[in-house]
Amino acid sequence: MGRFLMAEENFRTITGEDKIFGINKKAKEMIEKVGKENVANATVGSLLDEEGNLVVLSSVVEVLKDLNPLDYAEYAPIAGLPKFLESVKKAVFMDYEPEGYIEAVATPGGTGAIRNTIQNYTKRGDTILTSDWYWSPYKTITQELERKLDTYTLFDDNNNFNHAAFENKLTEVMTQQDRIVVIINTPSHNPTGYSLTLKDWDNVINAAKKIASDKTKKIVLLVDIAYIDFAGNAKESREFLSKLTNLPENILPLISYSMSKSFTLYGMRGGALICMSPNKEITDEFKLVNSFSCRASWSNCNRSAMITLSSIYEDASLLNKVVKEREVAQTMLLSRGKAFMDEAEKIGLSTCPYDAGFFIIVTCENPEAVSEELFKDGIFTVPFDNRGLRISIASISKPWCSLLPEKIDKAIKKVNAK
Amino acid sequence: MGRFLMAEENFRTITGEDKIFGINKKAKEMIEKVGKENVANATVGSLLDEEGNLVVLSSVVEVLKDLNPLDYAEYAPIAGLPKFLESVKKAVFMDYEPEGYIEAVATPGGTGAIRNTIQNYTKRGDTILTSDWYWSPYKTITQELERKLDTYTLFDDNNNFNHAAFENKLTEVMTQQDRIVVIINTPSHNPTGYSLTLKDWDNVINAAKKIASDKTKKIVLLVDIAYIDFAGNAKESREFLSKLTNLPENILPLISYSMSKSFTLYGMRGGALICMSPNKEITDEFKLVNSFSCRASWSNCNRSAMITLSSIYEDASLLNKVVKEREVAQTMLLSRGKAFMDEAEKIGLSTCPYDAGFFIIVTCENPEAVSEELFKDGIFTVPFDNRGLRISIASISKPWCSLLPEKIDKAIKKVNAK
Repeated sequence: MGRFLMAEENFRTITGEDKIFGINKKAKEMIEKVGKENVANATVGSLLDEEGNLVVLSSVVEVLKDLNPLDYAEYAPIAGLPKFLESVKKAVFMDYEPEGYIEAVATPGGTGAIRNTIQNYTKRGDTILTSDWYWSPYKTITQELERKLDTYTLFDDNNNFNHAAFENKLTEVMTQQDRIVVIINTPSHNPTGYSLTLKDWDNVINAAKKIASDKTKKIVLLVDIAYIDFAGNAKESREFLSKLTNLPENILPLISYSMSKSFTLYGMRGGALICMSPNKEITDEFKLVNSFSCRASWSNCNRSAMITLSSIYEDASLLNKVVKEREVAQTMLLSRGKAFMDEAEKIGLSTCPYDAGFFIIVTCENPEAVSEELFKDGIFTVPFDNRGLRISIASISKPWCSLLPEKIDKAIKKVNAK
Repeated sequence: MGRFLMAEENFRTITGEDKIFGINKKAKEMIEKVGKENVANATVGSLLDEEGNLVVLSSVVEVLKDLNPLDYAEYAPIAGLPKFLESVKKAVFMDYEPEGYIEAVATPGGTGAIRNTIQNYTKRGDTILTSDWYWSPYKTITQELERKLDTYTLFDDNNNFNHAAFENKLTEVMTQQDRIVVIINTPSHNPTGYSLTLKDWDNVINAAKKIASDKTKKIVLLVDIAYIDFAGNAKESREFLSKLTNLPENILPLISYSMSKSFTLYGMRGGALICMSPNKEITDEFKLVNSFSCRASWSNCNRSAMITLSSIYEDASLLNKVVKEREVAQTMLLSRGKAFMDEAEKIGLSTCPYDAGFFIIVTCENPEAVSEELFKDGIFTVPFDNRGLRISIASISKPWCSLLPEKIDKAIKKVNAK
């Protein structure tokens, strides 16, 4: 027998190593020793308040706790409750509901939405495209489905979106295959915090249109908007959605939506995949193939999470309350980002361009060593892709955000001097 | 363009037809017209009380509604909360906790557990084996993962488990491939209500052992116990689990567990996949590959469902209360089964052997026509596999259970006379 005993590897790289888990454990051990005020645990991917407790929107939990017993107990339809899917459209589009046809299916968080997209719009062996800075589960999902992940360089030398790199890579892959899923994580990209500008979107769409002029080519633009409600002004963050209408039929925009961050219901696994097309047959097909995938993967989704969202959207004053509560959390997060970036700029610390969101990337060489050096100061960050440190400003206080750039800068200099 | 526009068929048969949904809709329309007391909607796969309302264990919902906000909001670990996994073991094994190593991972219901098993213990193109009467999502799951489903004849001419058919089919498939997942749905098999006897299990295991004497062959016995808590005496229903210990290492028993029926939490998507082996490396590998699959499919599972289960198992008096409440529901269900089967026997109506569970199969020719004939009497059943009618006794009252055999018998005779 080889490396596997009873199980099959099935083209996956299964190491079981969880780097973030390991660093998080170290952080917790240090907190035990020196007290939490002396530790900055910038590894956690959830929004914590200034005291280090998970931010939970109480207005949302009140709705969830007050449901009818049947709303916890009963199965939901495979594709999701219709009123949930209507609420998701409102949550995503607000005033930007596009022309044409829209369909949606419920999924367990964004992960389920991404999984279903890759399963249904590519074939085994195909290449999926995303940026070189990316949320690592994209690779896990791709491998599980026996697809490959390729990347384009996200930023050019001036730290702008690298349009040329995007177009070149897309064109290269599409000489090898006739269909592709391109995953674009925006606004507040994980892990850099970058939000594509409207001009960036024009370039992305123009590159896709060039390929799509060959009608045998199919391009799915999967927009992962997990962080859209922590990207600043809600309407401005959604302006790009209007760019996704009136596209050629063989460019299909899909949106991966998650209740995890927007409603602080990470643990309830509420989410959806949304499809927009000028052609009703394409949105009908979307519903059909995704329903099959849901049935075959997790059956139906958590009914109570769906009812919670629809209850909120059925009651304008309740929605207003939730949005207000979320705005307080967002303001806290944005102020942390500003504190970090102001200080970084002042001392010339090199970062990826950051607009908003849970994470900031400090670019550096030898990030593993820098990360270890920072442990001594009680600072826990995640070495990322061997060319940066991922700092979760979502999980550390504003004072720590102001302090970190200088500490990191010193650690980088110390490591480089060795 | 062919049948599909933007999506890929990927070896699946995606029709979008949902026969049960269609018949259920007809039943509801008739209820509107003639009143619910005049309609028997025996299509529903959930347990309803004698008045047609979903049975919800109030002691379970009380726990769920009373959780700490964090228990809804926070992410759970990818493989599930450790205390949930401990509780699952207690729920499954009670006094029969096997020797050797046990591991478990959380999954969204039984569906996720079955999906992960097929993904991790077979390769694309492999054949999965189950009985000819089977829960149709087995086929959906198999197709989504680009595997094939093959079946053995479940019953012999005397309506006993068909050991020869099982052994022959298993042997046949294993001449073509080196690994297999065999899905055995017991006790209270869906859709027949049959429970494998201990003698049946001996035969199943002996057949597997013969194949497994060749150490290059790997056999996963996946036992789907979705209905175990509605199978009569809880301890007796679990006796077969002791048969799954001390097997050769290349026979791996896995158990698919669901909170849907046992805790009437269908909509919360709580479940788990459990692995037993005398070899720790095999259970470690199980945890590793299944964690990868969870991460790549739905990320983590519903935390509040997990905490609900662990809270119940941490409190003996609470557990007792839940079990008592469930026993009332089970007694109701068992009495319906007895009412139906007594009457069926009296009039000589042909059925599959029924021990317990949500469904009974009446075997007949031309079930589509018989089903339509029964619509006239306000009786809604599901034509199954072109050789039977599936009657959900879970969803109709005891008086209807006594009435149905004669009505069905008449309908069959009427159709056959044509």
